Amino acid sequence: MEVDFSNIKVIGFDADDTLWVNETYFRETEERFAELLEEYETKNKVDQELFKMEMDNLELYGYGIKGFMLSMIESALDLSNGKISQETISKILELGKNMIAHPVELLDGVEEVLSQLVGRYRLIVLTKGDLLDQERKLEKSGLSKYFHHVEVLSEKKETNYSNLLEHLNIDVNEFLMIGNSLKSDVLPILNIGAKAVHIPFHTTWVHEMVPETEQVNDHLKLNGLKDVLKYL
Amino acid sequence: MEVDFSNIKVIGFDADDTLWVNETYFRETEERFAELLEEYETKNKVDQELFKMEMDNLELYGYGIKGFMLSMIESALDLSNGKISQETISKILELGKNMIAHPVELLDGVEEVLSQLVGRYRLIVLTKGDLLDQERKLEKSGLSKYFHHVEVLSEKKETNYSNLLEHLNIDVNEFLMIGNSLKSDVLPILNIGAKAVHIPFHTTWVHEMVPETEQVNDHLKLNGLKDVLKYL
Repeated sequence: MEVDFSNIKVIGFDADDTLWVNETYFRETEERFAELLEEYETKNKVDQELFKMEMDNLELYGYGIKGFMLSMIESALDLSNGKISQETISKILELGKNMIAHPVELLDGVEEVLSQLVGRYRLIVLTKGDLLDQERKLEKSGLSKYFHHVEVLSEKKETNYSNLLEHLNIDVNEFLMIGNSLKSDVLPILNIGAKAVHIPFHTTWVHEMVPETEQVNDHLKLNGLKDVLKYL
Repeated sequence: MEVDFSNIKVIGFDADDTLWVNETYFRETEERFAELLEEYETKNKVDQELFKMEMDNLELYGYGIKGFMLSMIESALDLSNGKISQETISKILELGKNMIAHPVELLDGVEEVLSQLVGRYRLIVLTKGDLLDQERKLEKSGLSKYFHHVEVLSEKKETNYSNLLEHLNIDVNEFLMIGNSLKSDVLPILNIGAKAVHIPFHTTWVHEMVPETEQVNDHLKLNGLKDVLKYL
């Protein structure tokens, strides 16, 4: 495909699973959660019910670890018919606290790419989820120095992006978004007329998956963040 | 005291307990929570332990209802020595969900004041807490139309305010903050050289209380939001 990024002045980076590892910790915690409930249900059933609970609670809780913790507790009560032990509930709280306190692991090439792009482009972080969690991760990551602005959005839909570009005085033709989620980082960006690069992470949350039929071709898909340097 | 707001061009409004009722729902939920635990401890002891748990978890969870729910569950496990029933944990989850879904009740005079100030000043909302909760409350309140910008901060300390004023290109001499918390809305604002109006709410969370000795006099304290119209 033809790729022309010559107009680009501002680059937005998704954070979770684009700059640093995130989804992996959710999958690991789900494994531990299923082990805690193995006397009641199979791992497959536990996974399904937890995901359903998260979706039922998404409008109330939004994204992030605290809502995930509350959904694990509610699922544990449901799946065990209220028989889950108090000790197990304590362990669920501990699993969640460990996720929040987890060190930040940068993905391959992130520091190199940011240090080469800074100064040549205005770099911003556009992430969704819990404000405190995301601020904490950015601080722990040591990457704050590269970014002109950090915005935590409650959702990443077309209107959220349009409002943000307007608020930050960014021309849609000069904006490029880089992220791992087709649904959140690529499709809404293409729909508002900006450019997007998709860099898949090996693990995608079911909620972020896009059916093949809805996928589009007019964006650049790369295997790793370092590859963007060939185009920028 | 002498009050000169002639330089002011931008007014920041705190949201919880300044524009709408908030703390009251936390107090009501704490009442219900103490009732759920009355076979284990007195209301006074339950209050104390819950507050201590919230403070222990504040760095991890930040402000907002989800962290409050998780702290209630953890306190219930502690206070009952792990004997709390699964049904009680379900009820705690329900108490929290009801708080999140609660209708927004505007405080007296809010709509009148905003409609008189809009156009004459640039009005922004500066609140702390959970991003999704605050966005939802603003939308439910019907007040979005008055505000040029809404910023949810993870903390309201001097650096948070300084960074924000810089980012929004607001001159500190032209900025006035209005809020119910001396600790979060008034003292840090005075310390960075901007102006502040304090409008106490009848209920203040212990964490937001300021010792008498730290209180300062060079700000305007009013009984209700409508009174600001005398000065602006």
